[in-house]
Amino acid sequence: MTTTTSSVHAPAVRRLTAKGEATRARIVEAASALVFAHGVTRTGVEDVQREAGVSASQLYHYFGDKQTLMRAVIAHQTTAVLAAQQPELDALDTFEALERWRDRLVALQRSRHCVGGCPIGSIAAEIADDDPEARADLVAGFEQWEAPLRSGLTTMRERGLLADDADPDRLALALLAALQGGLLLTQTRRTTVPLETALDAVIELIRGYAA
Amino acid sequence: MTTTTSSVHAPAVRRLTAKGEATRARIVEAASALVFAHGVTRTGVEDVQREAGVSASQLYHYFGDKQTLMRAVIAHQTTAVLAAQQPELDALDTFEALERWRDRLVALQRSRHCVGGCPIGSIAAEIADDDPEARADLVAGFEQWEAPLRSGLTTMRERGLLADDADPDRLALALLAALQGGLLLTQTRRTTVPLETALDAVIELIRGYAA
Repeated sequence: MTTTTSSVHAPAVRRLTAKGEATRARIVEAASALVFAHGVTRTGVEDVQREAGVSASQLYHYFGDKQTLMRAVIAHQTTAVLAAQQPELDALDTFEALERWRDRLVALQRSRHCVGGCPIGSIAAEIADDDPEARADLVAGFEQWEAPLRSGLTTMRERGLLADDADPDRLALALLAALQGGLLLTQTRRTTVPLETALDAVIELIRGYAA
Repeated sequence: MTTTTSSVHAPAVRRLTAKGEATRARIVEAASALVFAHGVTRTGVEDVQREAGVSASQLYHYFGDKQTLMRAVIAHQTTAVLAAQQPELDALDTFEALERWRDRLVALQRSRHCVGGCPIGSIAAEIADDDPEARADLVAGFEQWEAPLRSGLTTMRERGLLADDADPDRLALALLAALQGGLLLTQTRRTTVPLETALDAVIELIRGYAA
């Protein structure tokens, strides 16, 4: 997984040295793993220190408070979630690509034994109501996810694979919602059937618009 | 909202007097409201005591530990969630009923200003991975939700409103997943558009099976 800059991230307050960047990245990765496993509330900054092998003052140097660290986690997990869906996500412009993307998502859940759900969706369910800045980051993260879905469907319509009355905006949002609900039910039921069924339903709807 | 017995609940360990039942119900309602607002982890038993106006020993009398109380919350919220979808949910046997049900869900989120998401789904996202007994209750809760969807669609097929190749199991699960994902995105984006779009997509797919 690359850790290139994401468009959802806390503002960089200072230029970091290469070593500083590495330490910061180690903190964010440790925090992300803990949040994925235990949630935001149950992830203490002391846990992150221990897991990342940094001191309290180091952690404070990079992230002044837990909220700032959690925003970095959202940025990191958004990048990771999108990376895990490549190469399909950025080229969802054929029915075959849609099916490969669907298969990749299902295989990923299977490899995780259906544990954890969506790294972004879980954070959203937990803190969207309480932290307006985190909520804004989550909105942006979901938008980064929805944009390539919309873009792929738009290309399919432009190429004549989908009829003119297919609405890429609506279908992309329906796909993202199906994915989120499918992931939550897959996490709860510990089987990928809900994710498969949810995605297949919207893909079937999209196929109904085949030109 | 009625507080009749739900099929998802912690086993009754003793017969309660009417006054005991009322106290128990007050505790569960207070705990449910706190969990809906702040999540499971951030709801302390002291908060529940204060909100319900009961002592620590009273709380302990009815619920030996927080886990038992949380299972009662899941049972209570399952009953409440299903009740909030009536009368449509138990008679989803026409396209008109499906649309009224969809409208009711959207209106409910609007009345809540899109805050809170799904009372069961939020708990699932937070604790399904950590508490096997709670997860089993959540599985049962979702099943209680899915059953009337499946039943309504089965009736529609039997009545000839849906073609023989319409699969009520698959379509019901797709509806529930769309609902859960739509609720999560509605909570995050603070607009009912995701919920509307997600439900409308699956209802459109179901309409494609109209006989």
